[in-house]
Amino acid sequence: MKIDIYAAQNSVQEKELKDRTVVVIDVFRATTTIITALHNGCREVIPVAGIEEAIAFSRNYDKNTFLLGGERNTHKIDGFDLSNSPLEYTRQTVDGRTILMTTTNGTKAVRKTHEAKVVLIAGFVNVDAIATYLYNLGEDVVFVCAGTDGKFSLEDILAVGALLSGLKNMGKEITLDDLGFVCVHMYEMYKNDIKEFLKETNHYRRLINEKLENDIDACLDINSIPVVPAYKDGVIRLNAKAH
Amino acid sequence: MKIDIYAAQNSVQEKELKDRTVVVIDVFRATTTIITALHNGCREVIPVAGIEEAIAFSRNYDKNTFLLGGERNTHKIDGFDLSNSPLEYTRQTVDGRTILMTTTNGTKAVRKTHEAKVVLIAGFVNVDAIATYLYNLGEDVVFVCAGTDGKFSLEDILAVGALLSGLKNMGKEITLDDLGFVCVHMYEMYKNDIKEFLKETNHYRRLINEKLENDIDACLDINSIPVVPAYKDGVIRLNAKAH
Repeated sequence: MKIDIYAAQNSVQEKELKDRTVVVIDVFRATTTIITALHNGCREVIPVAGIEEAIAFSRNYDKNTFLLGGERNTHKIDGFDLSNSPLEYTRQTVDGRTILMTTTNGTKAVRKTHEAKVVLIAGFVNVDAIATYLYNLGEDVVFVCAGTDGKFSLEDILAVGALLSGLKNMGKEITLDDLGFVCVHMYEMYKNDIKEFLKETNHYRRLINEKLENDIDACLDINSIPVVPAYKDGVIRLNAKAH
Repeated sequence: MKIDIYAAQNSVQEKELKDRTVVVIDVFRATTTIITALHNGCREVIPVAGIEEAIAFSRNYDKNTFLLGGERNTHKIDGFDLSNSPLEYTRQTVDGRTILMTTTNGTKAVRKTHEAKVVLIAGFVNVDAIATYLYNLGEDVVFVCAGTDGKFSLEDILAVGALLSGLKNMGKEITLDDLGFVCVHMYEMYKNDIKEFLKETNHYRRLINEKLENDIDACLDINSIPVVPAYKDGVIRLNAKAH
């Protein structure tokens, strides 16, 4: 099983993902939020490119069947129902609804995969569920990390490491590039105290400055939401088959 | 001192390097070869984009005043005088000559910096010399790693780590992005046996397959060539001032 990894969504071209099996990761916070929403009964999440597109798209839906969610610069967007905090996507709020979502990096990363064969949505919260799914699928995998402002984001790298480490522990032989080697290495070294290890990193500090430590804790709560969301035909849904 | 790092030359745009202080690193092997050549008396190294450009450019020079050097797919280019092995660039061969050089990633990385303010050429062989230069300069720095086929290459990441570690040890306060944090961390962890640590990585294995272990040893010989080459106006020369 050959593993390719892109550390930031803007370093990958759509054509490089065509017909591939892709895992999208944006630990802080988009993919964690999407996983949480689906687990709490949200019907589907539709990643949209921009704020205007989200509002235009919402005109297709009856009132009370959808919610607008997302962020710019870590903050809720004016006129939107929800921000990008997983803690807002409770069952009470999202059950049965469609969520139209736009974030700075995460939803862009998902949209880049529209020509891929299989697209899974991962975070720390569903790491073992995704690893098991990939193990059974047995195909080469491309990881697309959202990154932050086009740059390497350590929390995503550690989540990739956790996934690859899981695959290795199941006995899967995996072929890594140098970045994959770093992911596994860093995760294995720090898996017992990921939060402490992330304290020096940029995205972590930005969230702390915004008083979002509870979001950080939710995003790092490993295997707390063992589901496999998949993106297909423009929509993310929970799907046991995921393709 | 703020540090930005690009793990592969094709993830950076020329405009992002405009007016910046840039350090270019391609440990295996282009920057190590350039440093070696200049240390052995080569007059100047001119990075050229392609094979045809190198040959065309060479028509400006009198015979015996220049050499054509470089590689494609790790091999010497047909009709060229030298490959990309630092061991070929001996004093006997390069003293007083101009070298027109083209490699798959390293010379491309250098050429991308043509609008930068200061451009230094670094490898493990001159890590402390470059760190000292940067310490005295005191400006924010962008590291551009060549990478391999557009991907993260661990030997370059470790060399960046060695340089940043050197700056920290001199007492310089540096602000790192997440990739910088990984560079320093990985270097500090493995500095006593870098060769052993690199054995699982792709570029290392490719060089071993080509029976180039002596090149690897030369490229990892830390601080063996304490010089500061600089790229200015299209030409790399040894320059105490480096700008």
